[in-house]
Amino acid sequence: MTDKAYALFEERQRARGIDLNVVREKLKSLAIETPSWGFGDSGTRFKVFRNGKAARTPYEKLEDAAEVHRLTGCCPSVAIHIPWDKTDSYGKLRSHAESLGVKIGAVNPNLFQEEEYMLGSVTNANAAIRRKATDHLLECVAIAKETGSKDLSLWFPDGTNYPGQGDIRARKVWMLEALKEVYAALTPDMRVLIEYKFFEPAFYHTDLVDWGMAFQLANKLGPQAQVLVDTGHHAPCTNVEHIVAYLLDECRLGGFHFNSRKYADDDLIVGAINPYELFLIFYQILDASADADPAVRGTVDAIAYMIDQSHNIEPKIEAAIRSVLNVQTQYAKALLIDREEVRAAQSEQDVLGAEDAVRKAFEFDVSPLLESIREEMGLPLDPMRAYKEGSYAERVGRRG
Amino acid sequence: MTDKAYALFEERQRARGIDLNVVREKLKSLAIETPSWGFGDSGTRFKVFRNGKAARTPYEKLEDAAEVHRLTGCCPSVAIHIPWDKTDSYGKLRSHAESLGVKIGAVNPNLFQEEEYMLGSVTNANAAIRRKATDHLLECVAIAKETGSKDLSLWFPDGTNYPGQGDIRARKVWMLEALKEVYAALTPDMRVLIEYKFFEPAFYHTDLVDWGMAFQLANKLGPQAQVLVDTGHHAPCTNVEHIVAYLLDECRLGGFHFNSRKYADDDLIVGAINPYELFLIFYQILDASADADPAVRGTVDAIAYMIDQSHNIEPKIEAAIRSVLNVQTQYAKALLIDREEVRAAQSEQDVLGAEDAVRKAFEFDVSPLLESIREEMGLPLDPMRAYKEGSYAERVGRRG
Amino acid sequence: MTDKAYALFEERQRARGIDLNVVREKLKSLAIETPSWGFGDSGTRFKVFRNGKAARTPYEKLEDAAEVHRLTGCCPSVAIHIPWDKTDSYGKLRSHAESLGVKIGAVNPNLFQEEEYMLGSVTNANAAIRRKATDHLLECVAIAKETGSKDLSLWFPDGTNYPGQGDIRARKVWMLEALKEVYAALTPDMRVLIEYKFFEPAFYHTDLVDWGMAFQLANKLGPQAQVLVDTGHHAPCTNVEHIVAYLLDECRLGGFHFNSRKYADDDLIVGAINPYELFLIFYQILDASADADPAVRGTVDAIAYMIDQSHNIEPKIEAAIRSVLNVQTQYAKALLIDREEVRAAQSEQDVLGAEDAVRKAFEFDVSPLLESIREEMGLPLDPMRAYKEGSYAERVGRRG
Amino acid sequence: MTDKAYALFEERQRARGIDLNVVREKLKSLAIETPSWGFGDSGTRFKVFRNGKAARTPYEKLEDAAEVHRLTGCCPSVAIHIPWDKTDSYGKLRSHAESLGVKIGAVNPNLFQEEEYMLGSVTNANAAIRRKATDHLLECVAIAKETGSKDLSLWFPDGTNYPGQGDIRARKVWMLEALKEVYAALTPDMRVLIEYKFFEPAFYHTDLVDWGMAFQLANKLGPQAQVLVDTGHHAPCTNVEHIVAYLLDECRLGGFHFNSRKYADDDLIVGAINPYELFLIFYQILDASADADPAVRGTVDAIAYMIDQSHNIEPKIEAAIRSVLNVQTQYAKALLIDREEVRAAQSEQDVLGAEDAVRKAFEFDVSPLLESIREEMGLPLDPMRAYKEGSYAERVGRRG
Repeated sequence: MTDKAYALFEERQRARGIDLNVVREKLKSLAIETPSWGFGDSGTRFKVFRNGKAARTPYEKLEDAAEVHRLTGCCPSVAIHIPWDKTDSYGKLRSHAESLGVKIGAVNPNLFQEEEYMLGSVTNANAAIRRKATDHLLECVAIAKETGSKDLSLWFPDGTNYPGQGDIRARKVWMLEALKEVYAALTPDMRVLIEYKFFEPAFYHTDLVDWGMAFQLANKLGPQAQVLVDTGHHAPCTNVEHIVAYLLDECRLGGFHFNSRKYADDDLIVGAINPYELFLIFYQILDASADADPAVRGTVDAIAYMIDQSHNIEPKIEAAIRSVLNVQTQYAKALLIDREEVRAAQSEQDVLGAEDAVRKAFEFDVSPLLESIREEMGLPLDPMRAYKEGSYAERVGRRG
Repeated sequence: MTDKAYALFEERQRARGIDLNVVREKLKSLAIETPSWGFGDSGTRFKVFRNGKAARTPYEKLEDAAEVHRLTGCCPSVAIHIPWDKTDSYGKLRSHAESLGVKIGAVNPNLFQEEEYMLGSVTNANAAIRRKATDHLLECVAIAKETGSKDLSLWFPDGTNYPGQGDIRARKVWMLEALKEVYAALTPDMRVLIEYKFFEPAFYHTDLVDWGMAFQLANKLGPQAQVLVDTGHHAPCTNVEHIVAYLLDECRLGGFHFNSRKYADDDLIVGAINPYELFLIFYQILDASADADPAVRGTVDAIAYMIDQSHNIEPKIEAAIRSVLNVQTQYAKALLIDREEVRAAQSEQDVLGAEDAVRKAFEFDVSPLLESIREEMGLPLDPMRAYKEGSYAERVGRRG
Repeated sequence: MTDKAYALFEERQRARGIDLNVVREKLKSLAIETPSWGFGDSGTRFKVFRNGKAARTPYEKLEDAAEVHRLTGCCPSVAIHIPWDKTDSYGKLRSHAESLGVKIGAVNPNLFQEEEYMLGSVTNANAAIRRKATDHLLECVAIAKETGSKDLSLWFPDGTNYPGQGDIRARKVWMLEALKEVYAALTPDMRVLIEYKFFEPAFYHTDLVDWGMAFQLANKLGPQAQVLVDTGHHAPCTNVEHIVAYLLDECRLGGFHFNSRKYADDDLIVGAINPYELFLIFYQILDASADADPAVRGTVDAIAYMIDQSHNIEPKIEAAIRSVLNVQTQYAKALLIDREEVRAAQSEQDVLGAEDAVRKAFEFDVSPLLESIREEMGLPLDPMRAYKEGSYAERVGRRG
Repeated sequence: MTDKAYALFEERQRARGIDLNVVREKLKSLAIETPSWGFGDSGTRFKVFRNGKAARTPYEKLEDAAEVHRLTGCCPSVAIHIPWDKTDSYGKLRSHAESLGVKIGAVNPNLFQEEEYMLGSVTNANAAIRRKATDHLLECVAIAKETGSKDLSLWFPDGTNYPGQGDIRARKVWMLEALKEVYAALTPDMRVLIEYKFFEPAFYHTDLVDWGMAFQLANKLGPQAQVLVDTGHHAPCTNVEHIVAYLLDECRLGGFHFNSRKYADDDLIVGAINPYELFLIFYQILDASADADPAVRGTVDAIAYMIDQSHNIEPKIEAAIRSVLNVQTQYAKALLIDREEVRAAQSEQDVLGAEDAVRKAFEFDVSPLLESIREEMGLPLDPMRAYKEGSYAERVGRRG
């Protein structure tokens, strides 16, 4: 059925004037970074459920990530978390990754798991704790040099729980001071990706609460500083794709942490709650990729697509595969938008025509396209089934 | 200064026609239940900070709670959590409480900390797990009989993370089945207080998501089932005092879990984020306490005021004292509303007059009143300072 | 291409065990009511834009609605609004509708456009205004008898803007009193559908603020009172499909007002902002339609699907067609859910399997199916294009 | 009682080390601008209620505003809206204002009430409409020169209702182009204050959706461009005082549009829904007013405090008086914060101590202070009562 389905798909898209060669190339080069911590156990404040099947060591996590890449063909790198992935030799870790066919991606410092950070890390009122936090960031830059990582993903848990608890403007200054040191330690090919978050673990004010604060911080640091959009880190009802478009236009979007939310930072599988939003994010990205300004196009090309989820109840590897498939699916759909049609309707002020030109791409079934590409790339047509029926799943089943 | 201040306060309120004897009596009889778990360490999903000063055993927690009662005079009972407060003899625990001058209040079952509950407790698709969960509830009824507790506070973490994951309507039936068993086990002087929550730890659907579902469940069970309002468990922007008024009018409000929120279920100190909301809740309660219907008035009299917070960064005992003071303060202010003035403005359709009649009570400084009452009751005028300067704080400081 | 596409679609669905005959029958019998006011000009508080093309009289509105039915085949009835559709002879209006091939659907009273209603209609503190409002409701019952309408859709703008402004519990009593009178006037084949709304035009408290209050009111009135779910009338982040499932299980869901929202009651075209939510609503409905309890199944059969939108910037008839197509599309997709597969995964506690069983139906392209059905029904394959190219659009273009 | 009350107040504050001379001076110099449109009828999309008592002409509006200033002593200027306050001679309007003891404040262009603006004003895809909109802005700059106004308050209704409807990045460019023209027309002592809004009247995307976009636009324009914070224009749960602190630290906060919200842009009386938030905004402002950096202090001094509300159901003049009193009250409370105490607790990491140092200032009753100042300034002690009992209210009562 696959061939027939693809033939029909091709016929239909060609009739619309879509160049499937371009679409296929873009899809084949889509790279989605998986996070090492996505393969370990995680939970809510109420409970971390453990069935003993999740990866425990950095080495095991890389193996799981490599399996996801082997099956999907689009996860060539793995983000690490320090100290969760701390090891005595990052060279060895890097070699291990490479031997598995993946490389080490973004390095993620951790500024929330030591007692000293209770009232803040780089924005702590205590200078010694700020020093310690900044040193950890610098340590992560050093690790990135060893692992060959180009991106440092910075998420700060810093904030306060009560009015008056902290000096909001002093903390702003301290944040900049710490980041300036980190920025100075980068090599010219490295970037800091600055993440913001609406709330949690701080419940009154969060030092980097929104894209605007992350953006201004990046502006102050320099061209190697960019904003990282975590799709779950916004106020209710926020139009995320608008922020994406804005940051691209300012050449300040560095990457994504993909996940789904319905309420807060729920960290569910990306594309599982509101797939249309994911599609619309890609629509903005693809729109910017055709911009007249090469700087905007270059920003699009350098976007780091990363998954960052908390698999509380899901088997970890399947959850990663599902996430990757969902991203691929929505990216593929966005590639089917007829940009000319959209632009024409927009300039004719044809509201419903423009809406239709975008939405109808979402309504196509792209599975024949994805299967055809997998076939071409020598990948299993159904990566999820291949995983479940494969020997790796069996090995994981024997863990614990 | 205190005497002068109270004299002036009295003069002013009498001029408004407020009967301070009634106000004082109501304030003296205000009882706020503290939770045993509020004296232990708690945290977010990122980290539980521990400085070794927090109470560790049920016995220590009762001692801390008793200290709060000794200082504030209005916390005569302590809620317990099973199994966190599990002990070999609940009779002994009860005696310990009584020897400290407090009694054991509501019993709170825990259905979220065992591996089996990953996909639900009383609404789990697996009948054996539902059985286990229901048995735990029945165990808590039995414990309540031993501790002399009259209320069972039921909060269910049950829900799903993804569309399709669970059969929403089957889970609704299972919930009712479990609760019917529990209800049947109550003695006639006991109540089940049914709590609802907007989300967390479930992120797609929560079986008891709002007051409406808890209310209908209570209706189906019978008159000993009531709704428990946790002030942090609502959708953004929800008018909580409206729900309070509604439930009182239906004689179905059983109690409160007090805390503050700005974003989600932040579990901060009650009254710290939006004190006016707490005042308005008490305004509705006091309004209902003057209802023509004795059933409504009786419902008001039976309200269980309980604190339920997560003190992530605060010293626990001070946090409890602050919470109690905040509740007292807003209750006192609400007692100063001139109900006649409000009613008159309401019937004259005087929008700004009615608003003013309520708000102006909020603007009074009630500290002279509270201090005068503390003096009369033989309590320290400033419970927080008394704690900090007292020997108990010193003892706690030596913990760990 | 259509035939080939349908053949492939059929092959694929049959391979999954989907009975397309059932699917086709259900789709052919889907009836969506359009609102007369959706064909007139409407706007925001800032501006009502008018280009003179929108229908002005009840007669013209019916003609526009009939055109939508002629093109889509699934809009056999039209809701009316009193007094917007006030006419000297409802018998004449009914005949006009029938001559156009449609009938008059729900009657919608209007309690927000007269000066007296500034501080409330049926919950106004002034008894004379309550009387006037109730009389208007009774007038609408009488009109419904003349037009042959079976449903009275009740939305109340009633609420307050400030704490203290109104007596929340007294207003609750007045609401019930008014509704009891209305209920008593119904013939046995009529229903009142009670709508709730989170806020607007009242900004502090809304008398019927959520499904729970509408539900309890319906319970008090009797079996002919049901809840009307407007998809835009919820707090941010609310799980609407959960409410739908709940109400169906209680046999109290009477109908929908369909529209889309991103922020508040935005009243955009249904399915345009989050199509997956619309699909998930139909998933719950179809799940309930297979319930063991005939009362639940009967409730599903009696659901009134109605559109209620505010077309501020869209051409009205095209907006209606787009809305109808979006509803059809998501309904068709939901019909492709393999219920057995979902149930099996749910009972095996296979979280990702169950999620997949639901989501994958959403990912099918149902356009071949919809076209095939339109062909069978003698309808234009593409109703939007047929409208744009047809003579009716031309006539509308000459309006104004 | 007033003298005694003030004596006690003074004693208490002096004991805390508060310099009441400073507090009194700051309070006496507080200036709050009222909006001309706040004295006219306004409403929701459902209805504008009119009782004929509201001001109709710009001249009448200035008279009402002058009455509010006469009674409160702190409303020396009045914002105008063009074309609502269009007149044949702005010199005459200015003289009229001056003869009444007030001056004309910010000029507010209106880009939402002409048919052409249906799909945007300065971001409309049609260049001619952008031209028209920009010309209107330039016209307002010219008017400001005639009225002696220093601030142009810019709020744009621009945005889209559907994905795809507009080219988000092109619109961003058009916005900047228009603003550059306006900026170039300013004299060196003028400012543009750029307002942002979360949503409405656009329901999918709003071109200037948050402080970050307004801020970056101001950055691009130059030092005479600042951000205007409307307290009702944020996503649910947003920490507004954090944004205020941030903008002050960047010297980019130009002013406020004060009002209250519970749900969306509800435009209720400021301080009526969450007075603590208003207090916390002033806490941040006063904190910045003591900054070491003179540029930050200068920014604080130049803040334009403006009221912008929609009085749908309230008598207009009383609503304005209530608004002013609420602002004064919270400002007065914030002036009682002991900054040293807060700083000390912050640096000792005393969470509850710092919270207490801020909150306790909120709990003081500042009415003796405000009355004492009014007495000194020769104002009525109770401006609301003075209005109700005065001849101006009688005159207004005869309107219509």
